[in-house]
Amino acid sequence: MPPRARWQVSDETVTADLGIFLERRHKDVAFFPLAPLIPRGHAKLWAIGAVNFSNGRGCIMTEAATRGRRGRGGGGAARRAERSAVSFETAKYIERNIPNFEVLTEEALDIIEANAEQILEEVGVNFPDNPPALERWREAGASVEGERVRIPKGLARKLCATAPAQFTQHARNPDRNVVIGGKNLVLAPVYGPPFVRDVAGGRRYATMADFQKFVKLGYMSKWLHHSGGTVCEPTDVPVNKRHLDMLLAHMTLSDKPFMGSVTEPSRAQDSVEMCEILFGKDFVQENTVMTSLININSPMTFDDVMMGALEVYAKNNQACIISPFIVGGAMAPVSVAGTLTQVFAEVLAGIAYSQLIRPGAPVIMGAFVTSIDMNSGAPTFGTPEASHITYGAGQLARRLGLPFRSAGSFCGSKLPDAQAAYETANSLNMGLLSGVNFMLHSCGWLEGGLVSSFEKFVMDADQLGTLHHLAAGVQIDENAQAMDAIREVGPGGHYLGCAHTQANFKSAFWKSDLLDYKPFETWEDEGARDTQALATLRVEKMLNDYQQPAIDPATLEALTEFVARKKAAEPDSFM
Amino acid sequence: MPPRARWQVSDETVTADLGIFLERRHKDVAFFPLAPLIPRGHAKLWAIGAVNFSNGRGCIMTEAATRGRRGRGGGGAARRAERSAVSFETAKYIERNIPNFEVLTEEALDIIEANAEQILEEVGVNFPDNPPALERWREAGASVEGERVRIPKGLARKLCATAPAQFTQHARNPDRNVVIGGKNLVLAPVYGPPFVRDVAGGRRYATMADFQKFVKLGYMSKWLHHSGGTVCEPTDVPVNKRHLDMLLAHMTLSDKPFMGSVTEPSRAQDSVEMCEILFGKDFVQENTVMTSLININSPMTFDDVMMGALEVYAKNNQACIISPFIVGGAMAPVSVAGTLTQVFAEVLAGIAYSQLIRPGAPVIMGAFVTSIDMNSGAPTFGTPEASHITYGAGQLARRLGLPFRSAGSFCGSKLPDAQAAYETANSLNMGLLSGVNFMLHSCGWLEGGLVSSFEKFVMDADQLGTLHHLAAGVQIDENAQAMDAIREVGPGGHYLGCAHTQANFKSAFWKSDLLDYKPFETWEDEGARDTQALATLRVEKMLNDYQQPAIDPATLEALTEFVARKKAAEPDSFM
Repeated sequence: MPPRARWQVSDETVTADLGIFLERRHKDVAFFPLAPLIPRGHAKLWAIGAVNFSNGRGCIMTEAATRGRRGRGGGGAARRAERSAVSFETAKYIERNIPNFEVLTEEALDIIEANAEQILEEVGVNFPDNPPALERWREAGASVEGERVRIPKGLARKLCATAPAQFTQHARNPDRNVVIGGKNLVLAPVYGPPFVRDVAGGRRYATMADFQKFVKLGYMSKWLHHSGGTVCEPTDVPVNKRHLDMLLAHMTLSDKPFMGSVTEPSRAQDSVEMCEILFGKDFVQENTVMTSLININSPMTFDDVMMGALEVYAKNNQACIISPFIVGGAMAPVSVAGTLTQVFAEVLAGIAYSQLIRPGAPVIMGAFVTSIDMNSGAPTFGTPEASHITYGAGQLARRLGLPFRSAGSFCGSKLPDAQAAYETANSLNMGLLSGVNFMLHSCGWLEGGLVSSFEKFVMDADQLGTLHHLAAGVQIDENAQAMDAIREVGPGGHYLGCAHTQANFKSAFWKSDLLDYKPFETWEDEGARDTQALATLRVEKMLNDYQQPAIDPATLEALTEFVARKKAAEPDSFM
Repeated sequence: MPPRARWQVSDETVTADLGIFLERRHKDVAFFPLAPLIPRGHAKLWAIGAVNFSNGRGCIMTEAATRGRRGRGGGGAARRAERSAVSFETAKYIERNIPNFEVLTEEALDIIEANAEQILEEVGVNFPDNPPALERWREAGASVEGERVRIPKGLARKLCATAPAQFTQHARNPDRNVVIGGKNLVLAPVYGPPFVRDVAGGRRYATMADFQKFVKLGYMSKWLHHSGGTVCEPTDVPVNKRHLDMLLAHMTLSDKPFMGSVTEPSRAQDSVEMCEILFGKDFVQENTVMTSLININSPMTFDDVMMGALEVYAKNNQACIISPFIVGGAMAPVSVAGTLTQVFAEVLAGIAYSQLIRPGAPVIMGAFVTSIDMNSGAPTFGTPEASHITYGAGQLARRLGLPFRSAGSFCGSKLPDAQAAYETANSLNMGLLSGVNFMLHSCGWLEGGLVSSFEKFVMDADQLGTLHHLAAGVQIDENAQAMDAIREVGPGGHYLGCAHTQANFKSAFWKSDLLDYKPFETWEDEGARDTQALATLRVEKMLNDYQQPAIDPATLEALTEFVARKKAAEPDSFM
């Protein structure tokens, strides 16, 4: 079926439902030159010269379609390319070619750093229920009273100096390896929600089947570099066994890098052992194959469970994100500078502790920070105060010389609606510009982190493409200057068919795989769908198109056997 | 009715539907400590000390509510304050205390500026159907052939030098005056759509009644500094008379500054004369009371209608935004640097021409730029390429030393859904960081500018509050450092009730007047409304609460008489 003709062109008139494209060409009735209105008058309109609109869409599209078909003709290689082009391509992690945005002056940063060290020395931090940690601190030169550790000025920073400025996290497919730190940005999906939501099933407890679907969607998402960790909490699997199933899913349904379990030191140990099966024992000791999330119990408490997991990972050369978890005004002062002071004190202490376990263990300075609605006590997302804190934390991380984790597809909304998207876009943009190196929660987060949303996962994952293009910066070479194009077209012309456009249009613009750019009538004929409805279709299509990446059968068997053995070894527990 | 109790607190447990707030407090089942789940286990939870949650919302809210009631008790002044506090407050225009974001190097800017001057000299620009303009250019030293004006290097820039770096646009209420330029950002609503949309009425042609509603909403919107111009196109009023009704609405239904008509030079003249009635003839000649939109017919064509309006305004010392209107790849090269070259050539020529009319006439360097979907030819919004161009245009404007107009609540979506909000948030954030001084279209834009959306107007207008708070930057004084709060609370405590929080919480965080932060059950009980549904209610409430600002009866009569006389003087025309 040929495309429906939506454009009619004569020498003097264009009727189109593209509207704005022609807006100010109409001099007599400014902002009124739209297709549905044209029959009412005899508006003088501007036509795009001799461009062929007979297919209803314009010449560039015709050209693109023709080339596309030509390029894909022929033999098996082309067919393979076509197959793999469906959705299995993963963009390389972002290497920024743009500056960072910095809201704090050097003087303000000096004050915050000095205050953080003052707090560590004077107030200190707690390491409860963890005598070996207290002993390590005492040996390192800290003052220990009960569970309180007071760290003399300069000590924490000196200990942090052995942590690497950047590190490679290996994936089982080496093409998916990520380098975390420097000017890079690695994107990972939502982490932690006990609920899932989609249009068909509403809001409900997450199950292992949901978990597997999210891993598949993450594998299929072009702009997502990392498979993440607890993409949702599989509540139908016993608490003491679910980490096994989650890791098995990441290892077998995807070939992107992933995160380990942190809910008990023994589960961290299981994570390491499963990686030894997947990557080989020596490889794991010499390389980083997991990046795991160690939250600090803000304010300034390092609980024994999280520290126990950290100890396992650091000992095994595996990376940890050491991350204050802060709702400003509740777990930290209500002011931005005060929150940054506490955040920095906490990460200094946490990262220093990781280096006491194993100097050189890879770490990421984390900062989960958001604001609070003082009327309801609810955390709020995508707010300016959260942005200020994140921009500032990025500056502190760069001065410390360590990779930085923050931001994400944060929102408080119950639905993947406009609120969700405003808040998410605010946070994603801020994350890019604040110099984040590892963005957990970069897609799928809904309702303050209570819900992993299938639709929002693909909506956000599509928007992550904009971060890649933004980060690429602006070319200024001769081709980009386009002087010959301007000369060729001249006043009153158009660029749709000119040589420069023909040569560059394919890579010129980021292209959404989800959003609606259709003419109004087409959109209405197709059911007047909103973004959520389009996302429902995309989720279905991606899951239908999913093909499991190949894995060595012996490895798969060994992993499966490990999981079965571990599960059989203890009774189920849901506590 | 007391608030529903949603929190239950004992020494060891908190059950709440706040979820994330408590997330990592639960050590045994990380990311699983949510109220609905607690009965299933005996999770060890952390309680926020002695804070009183008996009202179901937390102590801070109680405090705020008590203070609020106390503050509003008593006599007439308090009642007046209460009345005016409903919604008539307008925030002062934004004065940035944050840096601009700059994507181009000095070297790249030098190249683009040199290329723009090369284009002006070599290719030139067209001033069709405008012999007096050609004569002015010839006298100024340009080479004129037919309608083509070639401007020797240096000439346009030299002419631009007489334009002021910033200017004050006066409102009839002096409290609403805006200073355009420097580090300021003035926000104005959507301009131009022939359609309106709301949930109740769907998409339909705009009428004068719609126009008046948008002016009222703009007047009531706290974060909007400017009443705008063609907030929608009132298609039920004859084309040759609608500017009179539109201006009358801005002048009488609001007291914020506004824009003049540009659709014919005679209508620009009517706009000046109506302002002379409103402000006084001498005042208008000595002050700027209108900022009007002069679009350049890109590439490089300055049509006689727009130039005719510009001539009227410049002669009368009224401000114009001189603005290329570009969909990249169609009206300008497909590359960012090429588009910026053309944009800069166009604004240099346009601003130079304004200064030929009257040296010192206030102008704004405009840049309406967006990208194109090369498959469909549809313009696309909130894209990374549009951001690059806008960031770069901001740098060029600052080097030229003139105020800058760009960005807005741009989106291509047909509905105020997630797509609309992603695209809009991308564009609003970019607008703030690119140093925009005047942001037309900052709220209400839908469907590529074809539609003014009532719901999106209030949704966007709410988000504009985030720009104010972001722009305020970060305080670093002793109070902001909050060292005493950190000392007071210490490891394992909380900040909800501490002295620093009590003293600062009211102004600490931006607060939405629209978005949903309610507990899930409350939200569900209230109908599980999405953002659009909340916005519908807010539109209704704002229009119900609207009170017309007072106006001198003699002025009102003179304006009404002017409009009646002008309307009677010529037959209706819809062309």
